[in-house]
Amino acid sequence: MHRSRLGAVIIDCRTEDLDRAAEFWAKALNRPARKPQDPADGNYRELHTPPGEIAVAVQEVEHQSRVHIDIETDDIEAEVARLEKLGARRVAFVKRWWVMEAPTGQRFCVVRPQRADFASGANEWPG
Amino acid sequence: MHRSRLGAVIIDCRTEDLDRAAEFWAKALNRPARKPQDPADGNYRELHTPPGEIAVAVQEVEHQSRVHIDIETDDIEAEVARLEKLGARRVAFVKRWWVMEAPTGQRFCVVRPQRADFASGANEWPG
Repeated sequence: MHRSRLGAVIIDCRTEDLDRAAEFWAKALNRPARKPQDPADGNYRELHTPPGEIAVAVQEVEHQSRVHIDIETDDIEAEVARLEKLGARRVAFVKRWWVMEAPTGQRFCVVRPQRADFASGANEWPG
Repeated sequence: MHRSRLGAVIIDCRTEDLDRAAEFWAKALNRPARKPQDPADGNYRELHTPPGEIAVAVQEVEHQSRVHIDIETDDIEAEVARLEKLGARRVAFVKRWWVMEAPTGQRFCVVRPQRADFASGANEWPG
């Protein structure tokens, strides 16, 4: 058995000023932006959302600006395999997550649990 | 005073088979797809999310597949004006909502309240 759910909205911004990009979204959504704890994630700004709300982050990217979703899971390999059976395909493994492409064309990521209430709110999938 | 918040994730799919597109996302997120009550919204499938969760819908579109977010509000004109001051611009009024473009390049929509718990969870903006 493993678990997964819709975990985050990631706002990908083609920008040379990540803090300014994050400031717009922080004010638009009224969720203050902060730097991630891990300096290796310096291309992100997390919008501080209360428990129970979907996570939101702003990412500096080199491709065109867009929005993507993250699916959070306690077993990345099992979740990726489940999604492949539904028609998604693996694109690349990056740091700690898989980038995938849906059969409908959108890219999304399969990531480790991001939110503290993950266990109580996630879908359970039989092994 | 008006209120707003991040209301929905809309999965825009360039497809001729909306039900099949919605089926992937319904199974991926474990949220069953259903047709909207209003036949005029036949280009949407709503994924049935429990109270407190962000709304998710799959939309058939003619542009390339992508993901966009909706901001829900009890005063569309006031919310659009607030977002314009932050740097967003109006693109088009469609049916009941404004399509806007963020200064970071993403399009998003400003829509009427979509979720039953809107009033308790929304941000309040002084008039």
